[in-house]
Amino acid sequence: MKTLTVELGERRYPIYIGHNLLDQPELLARHVDSRQVLIVSNETVAPLYLDRVAQAFAGRQLAQVILPDGEAYKTMDSAMHVFDELLRLKFSRGAHLIALGGGVIGDLAGFAAASYQRGVPFIQIPTTLLAQVDSSVGGKTAVNHPRGKNMIGAFYQPKCVIADMATLATLADRELSAGLAEVIKYGLIRDPEFFDWLEAHIESLLGRDPEALAHAVERSCRNKAEVVAADERETGERATLNLGHTFGHAVETGLGYGEVLHGEAVAIGTCQAADLSRRLGRLSDGDVGRIVTLFQRARLPVKPPPELDADAFLEHMAVDKKNVEGHLRLILLERIGRATLPMPVATEPLRQTLREYGRN
Amino acid sequence: MKTLTVELGERRYPIYIGHNLLDQPELLARHVDSRQVLIVSNETVAPLYLDRVAQAFAGRQLAQVILPDGEAYKTMDSAMHVFDELLRLKFSRGAHLIALGGGVIGDLAGFAAASYQRGVPFIQIPTTLLAQVDSSVGGKTAVNHPRGKNMIGAFYQPKCVIADMATLATLADRELSAGLAEVIKYGLIRDPEFFDWLEAHIESLLGRDPEALAHAVERSCRNKAEVVAADERETGERATLNLGHTFGHAVETGLGYGEVLHGEAVAIGTCQAADLSRRLGRLSDGDVGRIVTLFQRARLPVKPPPELDADAFLEHMAVDKKNVEGHLRLILLERIGRATLPMPVATEPLRQTLREYGRN
Repeated sequence: MKTLTVELGERRYPIYIGHNLLDQPELLARHVDSRQVLIVSNETVAPLYLDRVAQAFAGRQLAQVILPDGEAYKTMDSAMHVFDELLRLKFSRGAHLIALGGGVIGDLAGFAAASYQRGVPFIQIPTTLLAQVDSSVGGKTAVNHPRGKNMIGAFYQPKCVIADMATLATLADRELSAGLAEVIKYGLIRDPEFFDWLEAHIESLLGRDPEALAHAVERSCRNKAEVVAADERETGERATLNLGHTFGHAVETGLGYGEVLHGEAVAIGTCQAADLSRRLGRLSDGDVGRIVTLFQRARLPVKPPPELDADAFLEHMAVDKKNVEGHLRLILLERIGRATLPMPVATEPLRQTLREYGRN
Repeated sequence: MKTLTVELGERRYPIYIGHNLLDQPELLARHVDSRQVLIVSNETVAPLYLDRVAQAFAGRQLAQVILPDGEAYKTMDSAMHVFDELLRLKFSRGAHLIALGGGVIGDLAGFAAASYQRGVPFIQIPTTLLAQVDSSVGGKTAVNHPRGKNMIGAFYQPKCVIADMATLATLADRELSAGLAEVIKYGLIRDPEFFDWLEAHIESLLGRDPEALAHAVERSCRNKAEVVAADERETGERATLNLGHTFGHAVETGLGYGEVLHGEAVAIGTCQAADLSRRLGRLSDGDVGRIVTLFQRARLPVKPPPELDADAFLEHMAVDKKNVEGHLRLILLERIGRATLPMPVATEPLRQTLREYGRN
């Protein structure tokens, strides 16, 4: 087992990465100093892992909220179900929430923990690659609004993150690839050596080689932890973690939550961002080629959906947390391993990317 | 105009207290460095003061959400209306929210500001005595849940608080008295000289003497600011601000939100807490008499509603943020000017208070 630390002063916390960590109930139990525990999970994950998590809490007052699977359920209604259950059981301000699942469960349970009685402790047990390398680390919690993704939420850090590589064995191939989109992102924005390593090991990762997966998760979490420690509330570098996400969120909102996986949308959006960076003279043709090729090798989509035209993209991109007073701001790439902060972009090259990239 | 400061490091902010402050648009305008402004108010307050607040934002993109008046609308549904409007207008993470109204509006708009895009700046313009002396200061924001008051919320500080004494001129007598309940509380928990002053000036306050009101608001805010600066997240002294509130919340929940004003419920609850403190040998008969008498002179109810029996009280008191894992904890009085931290209380004396105090 490896232990990384997110350095946030009083709110610092460990990330545990290893094999079969859910079979070590004492690891989880020692982070929960309450008799009241509520596990939030979904209908896909709960049958696989809920019993193993529950064994850590023998003799305590253990409750659960099991939601349907999917981004469509990352809503305020689902958060209200969690509040209903916490209040029905009269759980107090010391009660602990456990998020057992992918990014949807982690974001939703985290927001519920941030808001219940103005904040109760919570623990992330991410069971998808995407959640392990990205959403479970860093304290961004949220639910979606019909008009925009992650628009209602809080910055709220967990007490610890437990990333058990064994949970990746049951992950659908499509979910594994979606997670790789965020893994590749770290190489693109700040870790060129990791990008090289990914080019050399992408087949091992798709083949679920345990050592390769553990390395990818650890290196990704290390990058994420460094960025979050330097800029918790996203006033600077942290925004680069959103490379491709403004395009990607437009894909998700435009198609409707659940039609496309978040990682798939990020893959498409990052290729669009790379294309735009090239048109603006920032990124070489060669780097664009390497980027698109690596996403393709990771079995990810790289072209925008035909039903979303440029105007639809622009409409959806107008609702984005990086925008300032209606002015679109985007993260661009300078080269593989270096991203810009969000910046205003001229409309015409952006329209060219939206009209031309991946449209033939 | 007096200016107090809530000392919270990077998040320190001023409280302005004075007459006709809403006629000084530059005071408000200089705290808003955004083109996008959303005012949240209610149907009672908006016709009186919205235009005056709006004049501070000439030339900016100004929006408003006007809710029905009353505690019954301090709900997640109302918060969702605010999010809907913010997103319909594509307001960005720099947009400012203005809470114009009493405690319900301040708590609700504050929670919406805390949660929209994980946090946008907001300003409190409290227009009731209760909001000026208590709820607008200190960063507690929340909405109610059918099973408990303020159960969903956040600690989130405003950029400033503007308390215009002129707004108290339009306040209903009943609302003025309700505010005095929280004013008296500061005397009881930590400021015995202020309690003496209140005994001497309660008629001036009820007569809306401007100087007396300004003094009461300033002294209350000074007490609140000191407590919050010492213990922002309520791990210690801040809990004493909830004297009488566990009983009071039970009155509010038991009668249904809106049947009784928060300050009225606090007056009843504080008298119950004083009676219990006496039964436990902590508070003298003489002090109990002074306390009950001052609330009565402030034209506040001091007896629990007959339709709530002891069992109903205990049921509603079981859902309270000060409780720990199902064990009720209450704040008691040692003398006028000194309160305990929340502490476990034996069931029998508590039942005696609930059965006997004010029941004849």
